[in-house]
Amino acid sequence: MCEAAAFMYTNGREELIMESIDVIEPIDERGFRLVSLFGEQKEIEGRLKAVNLINHRIVFEKQPY
Amino acid sequence: MCEAAAFMYTNGREELIMESIDVIEPIDERGFRLVSLFGEQKEIEGRLKAVNLINHRIVFEKQPY
Repeated sequence: MCEAAAFMYTNGREELIMESIDVIEPIDERGFRLVSLFGEQKEIEGRLKAVNLINHRIVFEKQPY
Repeated sequence: MCEAAAFMYTNGREELIMESIDVIEPIDERGFRLVSLFGEQKEIEGRLKAVNLINHRIVFEKQPY
């Protein structure tokens, strides 16, 4: 399967936010809605830092540009 | 493999931008750098509209929030 795990990068560390993510949708400029394979939803504040699909990793960060 | 294809949503239509994408990285606030499995790179202007990992689809759009 091609789901991914999401992490929040804060103070040089990555903290796991959610696993088995299928869908990522922006919520205006504040953040993103994450939806898992199982229909679980989570809203996070922050911006996208990087997505690496082969490694199944999505990293967000709270810092502005 | 878990690569995805990227599309640009414009005027109600989705146009293929790039296939076999591994990495997505933001370029400040302007857009994103896409990197394929084969090391090919492309920079696009726009914002993220939606990512669907199970369907291997990444959709961008040029409209602001």
